[in-house]
Amino acid sequence: MMKGSAKVGTANFNEKDIRSVLKRYLEVREYTESLCKGLKTEDYVVQSSFEVSPIKWHLAHTTWFFETFILKPYKTRFHPFNDAFDYLFNSYYETVGQYFPKGMRGTLSRPTVDEVFSYRKFVDENVISIADQENLPDEITQRLIIGINHEQQHEELMLMDLKYNFYRNPLKPEYAPYKPYEGPKPPELTWLEFEGGIVEIGHDSDEFAFDNESPRHKAYLEPYRIASRLVTNGEYLEFMEAGGYSDPKLWLSEGWHKINSDKWRAPLYWDEKKDGWYVFTLSGERKMDPEEPVSHVSFYEALAYANWKGKRLPTEEEWEHAMRDVDQSPGDNFAETCYLRPVPPSVSGKKILQGFGDLWEWTYSSYMPYPGTRALPGSLGEYNIKFMANQMVLRGGACVTPQSHIRRTYRNFFHLGERWPFTGIRLAEDLS
Amino acid sequence: MMKGSAKVGTANFNEKDIRSVLKRYLEVREYTESLCKGLKTEDYVVQSSFEVSPIKWHLAHTTWFFETFILKPYKTRFHPFNDAFDYLFNSYYETVGQYFPKGMRGTLSRPTVDEVFSYRKFVDENVISIADQENLPDEITQRLIIGINHEQQHEELMLMDLKYNFYRNPLKPEYAPYKPYEGPKPPELTWLEFEGGIVEIGHDSDEFAFDNESPRHKAYLEPYRIASRLVTNGEYLEFMEAGGYSDPKLWLSEGWHKINSDKWRAPLYWDEKKDGWYVFTLSGERKMDPEEPVSHVSFYEALAYANWKGKRLPTEEEWEHAMRDVDQSPGDNFAETCYLRPVPPSVSGKKILQGFGDLWEWTYSSYMPYPGTRALPGSLGEYNIKFMANQMVLRGGACVTPQSHIRRTYRNFFHLGERWPFTGIRLAEDLS
Amino acid sequence: MMKGSAKVGTANFNEKDIRSVLKRYLEVREYTESLCKGLKTEDYVVQSSFEVSPIKWHLAHTTWFFETFILKPYKTRFHPFNDAFDYLFNSYYETVGQYFPKGMRGTLSRPTVDEVFSYRKFVDENVISIADQENLPDEITQRLIIGINHEQQHEELMLMDLKYNFYRNPLKPEYAPYKPYEGPKPPELTWLEFEGGIVEIGHDSDEFAFDNESPRHKAYLEPYRIASRLVTNGEYLEFMEAGGYSDPKLWLSEGWHKINSDKWRAPLYWDEKKDGWYVFTLSGERKMDPEEPVSHVSFYEALAYANWKGKRLPTEEEWEHAMRDVDQSPGDNFAETCYLRPVPPSVSGKKILQGFGDLWEWTYSSYMPYPGTRALPGSLGEYNIKFMANQMVLRGGACVTPQSHIRRTYRNFFHLGERWPFTGIRLAEDLS
Amino acid sequence: MMKGSAKVGTANFNEKDIRSVLKRYLEVREYTESLCKGLKTEDYVVQSSFEVSPIKWHLAHTTWFFETFILKPYKTRFHPFNDAFDYLFNSYYETVGQYFPKGMRGTLSRPTVDEVFSYRKFVDENVISIADQENLPDEITQRLIIGINHEQQHEELMLMDLKYNFYRNPLKPEYAPYKPYEGPKPPELTWLEFEGGIVEIGHDSDEFAFDNESPRHKAYLEPYRIASRLVTNGEYLEFMEAGGYSDPKLWLSEGWHKINSDKWRAPLYWDEKKDGWYVFTLSGERKMDPEEPVSHVSFYEALAYANWKGKRLPTEEEWEHAMRDVDQSPGDNFAETCYLRPVPPSVSGKKILQGFGDLWEWTYSSYMPYPGTRALPGSLGEYNIKFMANQMVLRGGACVTPQSHIRRTYRNFFHLGERWPFTGIRLAEDLS
Repeated sequence: MMKGSAKVGTANFNEKDIRSVLKRYLEVREYTESLCKGLKTEDYVVQSSFEVSPIKWHLAHTTWFFETFILKPYKTRFHPFNDAFDYLFNSYYETVGQYFPKGMRGTLSRPTVDEVFSYRKFVDENVISIADQENLPDEITQRLIIGINHEQQHEELMLMDLKYNFYRNPLKPEYAPYKPYEGPKPPELTWLEFEGGIVEIGHDSDEFAFDNESPRHKAYLEPYRIASRLVTNGEYLEFMEAGGYSDPKLWLSEGWHKINSDKWRAPLYWDEKKDGWYVFTLSGERKMDPEEPVSHVSFYEALAYANWKGKRLPTEEEWEHAMRDVDQSPGDNFAETCYLRPVPPSVSGKKILQGFGDLWEWTYSSYMPYPGTRALPGSLGEYNIKFMANQMVLRGGACVTPQSHIRRTYRNFFHLGERWPFTGIRLAEDLS
Repeated sequence: MMKGSAKVGTANFNEKDIRSVLKRYLEVREYTESLCKGLKTEDYVVQSSFEVSPIKWHLAHTTWFFETFILKPYKTRFHPFNDAFDYLFNSYYETVGQYFPKGMRGTLSRPTVDEVFSYRKFVDENVISIADQENLPDEITQRLIIGINHEQQHEELMLMDLKYNFYRNPLKPEYAPYKPYEGPKPPELTWLEFEGGIVEIGHDSDEFAFDNESPRHKAYLEPYRIASRLVTNGEYLEFMEAGGYSDPKLWLSEGWHKINSDKWRAPLYWDEKKDGWYVFTLSGERKMDPEEPVSHVSFYEALAYANWKGKRLPTEEEWEHAMRDVDQSPGDNFAETCYLRPVPPSVSGKKILQGFGDLWEWTYSSYMPYPGTRALPGSLGEYNIKFMANQMVLRGGACVTPQSHIRRTYRNFFHLGERWPFTGIRLAEDLS
Repeated sequence: MMKGSAKVGTANFNEKDIRSVLKRYLEVREYTESLCKGLKTEDYVVQSSFEVSPIKWHLAHTTWFFETFILKPYKTRFHPFNDAFDYLFNSYYETVGQYFPKGMRGTLSRPTVDEVFSYRKFVDENVISIADQENLPDEITQRLIIGINHEQQHEELMLMDLKYNFYRNPLKPEYAPYKPYEGPKPPELTWLEFEGGIVEIGHDSDEFAFDNESPRHKAYLEPYRIASRLVTNGEYLEFMEAGGYSDPKLWLSEGWHKINSDKWRAPLYWDEKKDGWYVFTLSGERKMDPEEPVSHVSFYEALAYANWKGKRLPTEEEWEHAMRDVDQSPGDNFAETCYLRPVPPSVSGKKILQGFGDLWEWTYSSYMPYPGTRALPGSLGEYNIKFMANQMVLRGGACVTPQSHIRRTYRNFFHLGERWPFTGIRLAEDLS
Repeated sequence: MMKGSAKVGTANFNEKDIRSVLKRYLEVREYTESLCKGLKTEDYVVQSSFEVSPIKWHLAHTTWFFETFILKPYKTRFHPFNDAFDYLFNSYYETVGQYFPKGMRGTLSRPTVDEVFSYRKFVDENVISIADQENLPDEITQRLIIGINHEQQHEELMLMDLKYNFYRNPLKPEYAPYKPYEGPKPPELTWLEFEGGIVEIGHDSDEFAFDNESPRHKAYLEPYRIASRLVTNGEYLEFMEAGGYSDPKLWLSEGWHKINSDKWRAPLYWDEKKDGWYVFTLSGERKMDPEEPVSHVSFYEALAYANWKGKRLPTEEEWEHAMRDVDQSPGDNFAETCYLRPVPPSVSGKKILQGFGDLWEWTYSSYMPYPGTRALPGSLGEYNIKFMANQMVLRGGACVTPQSHIRRTYRNFFHLGERWPFTGIRLAEDLS
């Protein structure tokens, strides 16, 4: 998958300088491989649902991206690593050619994991050496940066998919050791108020952002209030215990059918045992902590919870506007903190807490193009626009997202019934 | 189904006076039955896809609506016609109780058509006599008006469903005689320009409108252009002949999968024969007329066509704003003209043509609640809000819609892949 | 469907004399229509599952059979009633041409019921007048007799399908008034013993029989015992109450998956209410009578019951051999008795009771061709042979079968999981 | 899967002597592992269709069998290797407990391949040391022999499944080097005649055979002819080129639907390229050899071919009787020859050629219990009987079967539409 937009800028490099970009390229490529430390060969191969992909597919697909969009068009005398990889590792670029069926990726034992790592090495060497070519078109650095951001998206997907694969395995393997959270209890939920009016939305700097974040444009907002922090497990459990999953009045019609046909009675990864609820994490099954943010809920569940509270979800414009003075900080709970799960906010105060990191926040906005949007010419034009149907926007990044990938204007998107992303709930309401 | 909002006002009655409302009630109930003239008993029974319902189900369901929301709560000493009808003719009101599976409605031979007409008569008599009761709560007239509008929506659905059922029958029956169109050729497509800025959107009179049209609110629009008329069959055929259905660049990803899995290569109801394209209508199969508006296209097809032309679809706010000075006129092609198909605009000029009637126009807006929306308390709160997921807004009414049902702020909605509604395409673009 | 073989001989007519055959033709055609007395128009139209067909389809398909195999090849100057009927009313004769999808038969409102009766009249008149043609080939009488037997099979299917359609309707309509059974209680189950050895199996007279009953051939049987009567509801209830549906040891693997995926815990048409079990019949829902034979069980259930009793089912050769001295008698419970449900045997004694009529008895024999079988040349060769896969043989006819249709060698067949036929259980065991 | 019956006797060991049986146990366990030489870790993990299982599942499941049926009941102070394995590696023994869904086996990365080999080692050590226990019940040797035969069945399944997994991979991996066949051309097909009459069928020695081969019993056969050798690729291609896949008259009704819905136009593993037909083998893709026996055909295709030739398939009784004087010989093409594909017969003459080895031969017999069959008490009773529904018997073993596993009375079975087993066609006909 290929989504959202990445603030590579925070990574502190010069987007115009090919050597600086290639240094960044190597950092990101290495980070991807560092996520595989501790995996067994078998862990790279499996695919436990249509949505997830094998780890070795992610490793190869991100590599195919550079081979296809950098090496094939720009590298002199380039010969692809293996002609069949075009068919195997194209994700969905219809304009590039046919691709192997997504749901069958987990049925392929070959290429082996070793061969995939060789493929990565081969492409890396070719990419790095491109800096020595003369008369490089400017487009190369732009494509490299897209490819770097693309790879960061797959870094997150790898953790999402590993979690799901491990959860479906009755042996319940652990990906990483459990890192205890030792901060304060979550502060009481308070409300931050905004006057609304005409606001500006969207990307507006020279730094890289995805096509779906532009153009910057005006929007009109009514006055609104937004919650200071995410909804917790404990708060969500109240909804469950109050019969939230049994009351059709709280649900969208399609959500009601979904929870009944799929027999949902709790978020994904929750399991009830004799001594209470457990939650599966990348560090194995743990007792549910009522103070952690509730995660892995669908849009349907997020909205039903909000309805039950007499609130609603914020629109993406409200969210972005409310975050206009909030900057990322080193303490934000992104992948680099190594919790790999959401934790309570470590501070309180009169601003949005947990806005960056912890969990992707469902907004009350369909994923649609901004006014004035045009598709890029060529295959990279397939990057974002073509997914603008039947999905909702999520904002802010999560505990499995690389921090440098995110910015305030970043738009992620998922279908309303998807629960394997690291999603959470922030409430809002009209101010009137 | 239960959708949109109806301008009963054009029907010229007093919404506060129960006797005036009941007179209107009888008119609409009779009109419904008049649509059945010429049907065979068998035509009331069948259901040729999950989306459509048997005609007798529509006749009974609209009746059940009045029985459930008027007679049961307000009529003294009322005994329902048949206790089992609650289960059989509830469409989807989860809060009212269980309902018979939608896809199985066409498997029921009983109640017979005669019994359904008796049911209608029984309910009509009870409703009419309610005016004689003392101490009627005000809510009754409001509920009657909702029920009247609800029935009008089913009047349109009956024609949609009959068309689909007849089309699926190899004998290709005709519902009504063919009425030739004898107006001028369609005028050349021109563009109307709007400056945008802050505009007001939504319902703002005392007259009835559906809950989804309120509250009236501000929106910010960039400058835009909108096409003077609908896209024609002839224009759409150019897209087809240029390979529009074979070029993935033009399509949303989900649309591309849809047209390939369902093998769509033309709008619904089009069939290619030795001597060219034919289009099935409520008056049987007819040679495709290149001057008529193209109809029965999905949102995916409408958007792909727009992409191919280098244009886009208007948002619902743009549409409503562009129509702010356009009023309905007696010549608009609604159900009452008896064409039962879209026709070319009979006039030209510097305003939106075909905005009311002819075809529902796909907008580039997801069906979402307006800012400040609240669900109604009780079962009628299920009317609209709960369908706000994975659907797009359509505007303006169609050649099978009762004219008095429609107004400028009316919001209809369908899933992106639905083609059995009478849908069409109007183009728009940024002005810059 | 087109199955089994019919002893038209009991109907007392001369199979070689065309006028005698045509008299028989008219009797059977009239009997078919007599089954429709009391039906509402709507009852002819619906199809509540893939297996069943609309009544009007049966009426037209049996007519199409005579039009296709008699009138088109042999009638001079014959013009079909409606060319489209070939596509609509061919059931599965691949060699005759394409046919309308079986599962969609209930979606067609046209031709109307009246038109179908006109079609029947048209074909009847043409068939009758064929006797006046000169130089008739002998094959005509043979084809007429096949068509007559074919129509009798559909007479039974009409009652099977009506029962299923009515059962699926929450209004639970009644097809015919309830006729009480006033005979004695069922006699105790006893066992009849047979020595086995080489026996002769299959049809061996000049009278009509279906192709699947020939050729007569030898088979070797070990000594065996067979039960004197069918298993009763009361006996089957003991199996249910002993946990028969929860013990995987009793079931074929595919049966175990079937009962669990379809949630079977009782025969089809049984429903448990506060005051005990009820059984749906063609005369509506009735309290379950423990003395009536258990009906509408699948092969899986029949075999599981037998396993639970430590017995087995008889093979078709054992059944036919055990019946070799049993003749049909006027008291046998076929369609003509008008019970339309199985009843206890009215006599007892040292022979097979209920062997003819009451219920089709599952045998422990796959439906396979007899040694020496050849397919008929031409389309009628599709009649039986091509269904010889994944089905089991049933013997003896049922309370909805026309008595004259059945003989000792008659082979009916159904898939192992089908329950809408009138099926029952007779036990057998090895004698050693 | 767990099927058929094995002539361990040819392996020359004493079935009553535990030490002799344990020596045999080790040989078979080692042979299983020898089949994995050359596999990559990834090759053990994947499952490319519902029917096939991952290689590591086979390795663990066969081990679980000994743990469950030998060690748990008989080994003193035994602690299982991992309690979760009972759920993971039970194939279908309902009476032993729940099991992991078959279709999801390929989604499990853990236990790893290394852990599975450790599991095998653990169980082997425990099994071998059981010989030192005192007062061993006789049943142990019997269960060991069943387990040994069970493991041999999975040896064949491993090769079947690897072939299918590799075929579905666009990289078309090779399992083993190609071994050329250098024998003579296939002899002309001749016919061997048998008088029939009463014959004896089934197992009748002291050596091990599966429950489904007993009891030995009498059957009556009409005179028949049987083909001297298997049908070749070249002969089957004639059927294809004559339009065999387009003529409904040749097919069972369910077969006709299968070939059309699955778009079969050739046997599994055949692919047509510019320069002719290719066949995928365990040694990769090879040009189709017209002299090799046609393989990987379904029962439907085998029967359609026979119909086209005006012949039929032999019943299992005819096959067994025709083979009564044919003994296995060292040259038979079983797994040990390492061709891993069928080859032409290396001799000719007046007896059945290719009866043992090369390909499993579809018979015209449903898989049903022999007269007098009783289920074994306990879980091992689930071994064969419960699969006796909707399957056909196959005889003779194949080029991937261990030779010692097979005998004349061995009954294998598959559903009529299965093609991934190594199946072939031998013709028969009535003699009259």
